[in-house]
Amino acid sequence: MPMNAFYAQSGGVTAVINASACGVIETARRHPERIGTVYAGRNGILGALAEDLIDTGAEPPEAIAALRSTPSGAFGSCRYKLKSLDAHRREYERLIEVFKAHGIGFFFYNGGGDSADTCHKVSQLSQSMGYPLAAIHIPKTIDNDLPLTDCCPGFGSVAKYVAVSTLEASFDVRSMAASSTKVFVLEVMGRHAGWIAAAGGLVEAQGVPVVVLFPEIAFDEARFLARVDALVRRHGYCTVVVSEGCHHPDGTFLAEQGTRDAFGHAQLGGAAPVVAQMVKRALGHKFHWAVADYLQRSARHIASATDVRQAYAVGQRAVELALEGHNAVMPTIERTSDAPYAWRLGAAPLAAVANAEKKMPREFISEDGYGITEACRRYLLPLIEGEDYPAYRDGLPVYATLRNVAIEKKLPAFTLS
Amino acid sequence: MPMNAFYAQSGGVTAVINASACGVIETARRHPERIGTVYAGRNGILGALAEDLIDTGAEPPEAIAALRSTPSGAFGSCRYKLKSLDAHRREYERLIEVFKAHGIGFFFYNGGGDSADTCHKVSQLSQSMGYPLAAIHIPKTIDNDLPLTDCCPGFGSVAKYVAVSTLEASFDVRSMAASSTKVFVLEVMGRHAGWIAAAGGLVEAQGVPVVVLFPEIAFDEARFLARVDALVRRHGYCTVVVSEGCHHPDGTFLAEQGTRDAFGHAQLGGAAPVVAQMVKRALGHKFHWAVADYLQRSARHIASATDVRQAYAVGQRAVELALEGHNAVMPTIERTSDAPYAWRLGAAPLAAVANAEKKMPREFISEDGYGITEACRRYLLPLIEGEDYPAYRDGLPVYATLRNVAIEKKLPAFTLS
Repeated sequence: MPMNAFYAQSGGVTAVINASACGVIETARRHPERIGTVYAGRNGILGALAEDLIDTGAEPPEAIAALRSTPSGAFGSCRYKLKSLDAHRREYERLIEVFKAHGIGFFFYNGGGDSADTCHKVSQLSQSMGYPLAAIHIPKTIDNDLPLTDCCPGFGSVAKYVAVSTLEASFDVRSMAASSTKVFVLEVMGRHAGWIAAAGGLVEAQGVPVVVLFPEIAFDEARFLARVDALVRRHGYCTVVVSEGCHHPDGTFLAEQGTRDAFGHAQLGGAAPVVAQMVKRALGHKFHWAVADYLQRSARHIASATDVRQAYAVGQRAVELALEGHNAVMPTIERTSDAPYAWRLGAAPLAAVANAEKKMPREFISEDGYGITEACRRYLLPLIEGEDYPAYRDGLPVYATLRNVAIEKKLPAFTLS
Repeated sequence: MPMNAFYAQSGGVTAVINASACGVIETARRHPERIGTVYAGRNGILGALAEDLIDTGAEPPEAIAALRSTPSGAFGSCRYKLKSLDAHRREYERLIEVFKAHGIGFFFYNGGGDSADTCHKVSQLSQSMGYPLAAIHIPKTIDNDLPLTDCCPGFGSVAKYVAVSTLEASFDVRSMAASSTKVFVLEVMGRHAGWIAAAGGLVEAQGVPVVVLFPEIAFDEARFLARVDALVRRHGYCTVVVSEGCHHPDGTFLAEQGTRDAFGHAQLGGAAPVVAQMVKRALGHKFHWAVADYLQRSARHIASATDVRQAYAVGQRAVELALEGHNAVMPTIERTSDAPYAWRLGAAPLAAVANAEKKMPREFISEDGYGITEACRRYLLPLIEGEDYPAYRDGLPVYATLRNVAIEKKLPAFTLS
């Protein structure tokens, strides 16, 4: 008798998280003897808690296939963190009850470090509650900060977006610098890890004078300004790629909006105008600045083909791992060669994944702290390799919107703690 | 005896201005009996004044062909406005002297309204100084605000970028809205005309709840907030596309940085955070905001195929017009049908083009002022139609950087007034 599966998307969405969903659902559909229906949580784990389960079985194969080229979370995601079993025992138990009520034997959770932790706890609790569940975490994060995997699906595409955008905007500044803008500042995401900002550093090899401001390197205003000054003197212009997580030596961010998200993380934004004004004040250069924000992580139109392939592959592999009897693991990407790039899938125990954060290794950041090293370049290039263009109609990409029909509820309503 | 030609790029660059340069140079090369060498002004008209003339003849055909898919100004552009003949008579006369010294009989000036005016004055002065010149203006502006042409090369690509980005970011917000961001604000360019912002309105037909803030409609905070509130209540989220030129009823911009460019225009930026904070304060919704800035006008990676074709065509036609004996004209794009889209080239006298500004017609803006009408949609759709992808190497677009070798100077140095 096949068991049903539950799939949920967690945290900030990416250009390719739906490719992982596609991998899960298409693979599950090839094993009807083992897996019944894949239910998706509407708005992530909140959907499971509310027993708001989407019947992906109601979607035709073409709609599921279209997920591969549709950005963001087709079933909705959420920022809701299940903390310790003590703090959130009611919620954890509710999850198991919902799974039990709907014959769910497989739990696929698609997210970053926080959701790996939740997935691990669900797996533990299900054992102790006598309702064993195959709980598999599927890696996803533009921040590229999960341990034990060479890279994280979602990152390659945002890296490609940032590298392409930095290159293009730099050409623009170069064109105008003689009489107008000399310094362009692009703010990118990356709260604690500078992986995304590092992608901006890739354009240096194209002759673009670029300064990268990493969260890993405490900001030093005088040194930074001297660097910009030197580059503008030599090249006539320069581009600055600043991570939203860039901070002063005392730990305060260059621009903190003062609000915090559901996970207690500071909500950032606005480092670019701060840096731009700093340059203007000290050096007098005309500036322009951009904040890419959601544009960078939703830019499916310029997704990395490597990233799309890997996102699909980890979704597919998650199902296979479950069918092979694994539990509390996460499929990983193992690099076997830089050039030509080669990779294979592995698996890591969730106990080792949860809540660990992989920062940029110091040897990926140039000695002066403002650029990337050749080792970093070798690491990044395969991840942005290849274009995987969506189809277009009337000048716009054709992205899927699913019907997202809920199945009937069987349990009493539930209120979050 | 063939005369040489001079080509210069003016004002803010675009994703396709080099396609016009490509059209000029390739067409000129097909008429060696009439046109000698095409010289390009290094950094636009400043190069002519400084007698800093780039020998495009030193570039191989492949390099010139590559301009078609290279964004921004390959020879450099500038923000330097030649005003009236009285105010800048020395400069105008210097231009004629430089042209005379280098046997230049054709002047191709690639820019917006200001440069159309300059081009016109150069044509007039050359007549009165007894050195007749064929002066042809080539339209270029992302603002789409030139009169007498159905659209302006450069606009279609930025419109495509804005429409695609708005769609993608809206999918992102939709995914997150249940527990996180409910309002996303994207700031786009367009100082006085809302053409670029209008492109964001195209996503409404895809079911996205979007509010467009045009410079043509005075901002009304209470009405705007009521609109956002209604959309969030109905759809769970909404996207706001705000033009940098959006302003209060008294004319002050939503966000003015207080600095002015060489043309005396206020330098804008930062309307998005202002609008986002306004929503947060009044409605309490979590927000994200992005400022696309240069990214939007340099995004050759997502250029409109229509735009690229038209940019090339006006460059080509400019040369043909000159060879046909025209003077003080600008090639125009004449639309003959919306669907299927059909267009042909025309020509307009510079006297009628210079310094006129084409705003959005009121009938292109929805009655409530927050969206676009069906007529606007019919106008915009063909302009973003088709993808014209550049080639890629190592994950990045292959954009050309020319050698830009200067020819020998013959005149004494010149200092700007």
